Amino acid sequence: MRLGVDVMGGDHAPDAILKGCVQSIPDLGPRDELVLIGDGALIKDYLHDAGIADPRVKIAHTTEVIAMDDPPVEAVKTKKDSSIVKMALLGSHKPAVDEHLRCDAVVSAGNTGACVSAATMHMRRLPGVHRPGIAVTIPTFHGPVVLCDAGANPEPRSSHLAQYALMAEQLSAVIHKKASPRIGVMNIGAEDSKGTDLIQGTHAILKATPGIEYVGYVEGRDVFDSSCDVVVTDGLVGNMLLKTAEGFARSLINGIVREIMEADPDLMLRLEPILKHMFKKNDYHEHGGAPLLGVNGVCMIAHGSSEARSLRAALRQCRTFVRADLNHAITARIGELGEKMESVAVSMSNGG
Amino acid sequence: MRLGVDVMGGDHAPDAILKGCVQSIPDLGPRDELVLIGDGALIKDYLHDAGIADPRVKIAHTTEVIAMDDPPVEAVKTKKDSSIVKMALLGSHKPAVDEHLRCDAVVSAGNTGACVSAATMHMRRLPGVHRPGIAVTIPTFHGPVVLCDAGANPEPRSSHLAQYALMAEQLSAVIHKKASPRIGVMNIGAEDSKGTDLIQGTHAILKATPGIEYVGYVEGRDVFDSSCDVVVTDGLVGNMLLKTAEGFARSLINGIVREIMEADPDLMLRLEPILKHMFKKNDYHEHGGAPLLGVNGVCMIAHGSSEARSLRAALRQCRTFVRADLNHAITARIGELGEKMESVAVSMSNGG
Repeated sequence: MRLGVDVMGGDHAPDAILKGCVQSIPDLGPRDELVLIGDGALIKDYLHDAGIADPRVKIAHTTEVIAMDDPPVEAVKTKKDSSIVKMALLGSHKPAVDEHLRCDAVVSAGNTGACVSAATMHMRRLPGVHRPGIAVTIPTFHGPVVLCDAGANPEPRSSHLAQYALMAEQLSAVIHKKASPRIGVMNIGAEDSKGTDLIQGTHAILKATPGIEYVGYVEGRDVFDSSCDVVVTDGLVGNMLLKTAEGFARSLINGIVREIMEADPDLMLRLEPILKHMFKKNDYHEHGGAPLLGVNGVCMIAHGSSEARSLRAALRQCRTFVRADLNHAITARIGELGEKMESVAVSMSNGG
Repeated sequence: MRLGVDVMGGDHAPDAILKGCVQSIPDLGPRDELVLIGDGALIKDYLHDAGIADPRVKIAHTTEVIAMDDPPVEAVKTKKDSSIVKMALLGSHKPAVDEHLRCDAVVSAGNTGACVSAATMHMRRLPGVHRPGIAVTIPTFHGPVVLCDAGANPEPRSSHLAQYALMAEQLSAVIHKKASPRIGVMNIGAEDSKGTDLIQGTHAILKATPGIEYVGYVEGRDVFDSSCDVVVTDGLVGNMLLKTAEGFARSLINGIVREIMEADPDLMLRLEPILKHMFKKNDYHEHGGAPLLGVNGVCMIAHGSSEARSLRAALRQCRTFVRADLNHAITARIGELGEKMESVAVSMSNGG
């Protein structure tokens, strides 16, 4: 298996990314390869300094970098020799790609919008898929919940969200081994009258889709209550929810620690290892990235603030996704139900 | 001061609400009054059983109830003798209202949409205000952050959100005593290119508004990082964010407790009083309700799952709002900056 990494993308790139790549070398099998995509001289220097001379580590040299705050679509169009564009090409099935560098899966912690745009443009979509969506797995105490979309598609249609339900359902089934994943649509209440046209349209399509375990609307708190295994939402809301939850969790933990330190510092000493163990289990740095579902290939979006260990986790995750052949399952599911969904969407007044 | 309570609304109504009213009687001054709005016979029975015969407690009898899952606008139009509609009338300045029951502030834990709809219809809007918005104060370790809108207006325009910024700014200044409240617009990133037309339009209006402390876009995690004192968002997103954070917090705490119980049950015994103290400080049941800003009167929306103590806290909060005369400050601020904002909104392509 050949895995490609955009070493130029991320808040701590290229150092943290390269460090993560080096840490991942022990995970490679004898026939596996790692393609480091970015400034060739910089990568060579780093590998030299780290004492790495492994023939399984290859370099795909690029001369440009898409910055974290570049406008995504424009950047992908103008920076054709950027690491993100190269990554998408290497992860694609395009005939022009050098077969010795073609990757089974690619990872970037860079500009998310640019990754989505480049992957959509070069890797192309799976048959029948309208728009790729980012799926984030939220570890809850009742098991993993897959949220899609977490930011690929900020202004989707109902028919896009309905497809996200199917793709995330397959992720839940194939990767998390859920038997019949329960699907919910995020809304501000459980009543039919609640929500925007987008939400109500998605609800109508999923209600009319046979053979799925659709539980209807779910609210934010239900995500953590074992009400469903898959939550569908638009990319803007999904992204905000995840970041709010992240900020809130950090704030809450800091608050608890501060309160305990004030009341009983000795108690904190005893508590520390327990908390550390727990956070490690739920730390996104240990969980890797979020797959961009719906593209023809495996593209993993790592957190912008990825550290070396997050990158290593993302690479491990890539292997799982390639081995499980999730795309095969998604293509089959969209083939089975996609047209049915489409006809419901078209028959609706909002046009889906 | 006369305070009105919809005793029929809320998940635990009427019992928890009536219990909260009875618990609030000691908070009443000699010239204060409490108007219980709902089924008169039921209220009389409850007061009798509770041994309450206080002339300051009055009853406004109604024959209908708007259920938590009734479609709001329709319910307000058809159930004219419902406790929510009566509450809005009693909280209004309409001449038809019985002066002996007219309230300085009203509270409901019932159907939020119906409260917003009834209050907008009967209490009317403050001069210059386009749409009322629900403001929720989030207690963070850096101080209170006001989020508006939390669900009154699920499909707003940029000009509505810009006004929410001003109204929430005044709440932060008048109620939380912040000197120059910093205002942020919730988005999925800090870059100008991010977000929907709605978000970008709001950003443009606030950037062009003189005399406010506008800090630009904020992400979910910034809310807890002391980046701003006021966060503006549309009602749908705001509502989802709050409910997700609520569910996540509960899940996180349960997880911590479970982990500690497994590792060291004795430790939990020592930790319990510290955690309890901390949660009490941050418990929404102790913080009361969320004001509907922009209506001509004081209307407090209490949490649907309000218990007796949450209702009591909401009534205390009503007194604070009436005494501080927040509406005066809002009217002055909208008078000062509203037209300026309007002209920016109109000049924008999206029509504000």
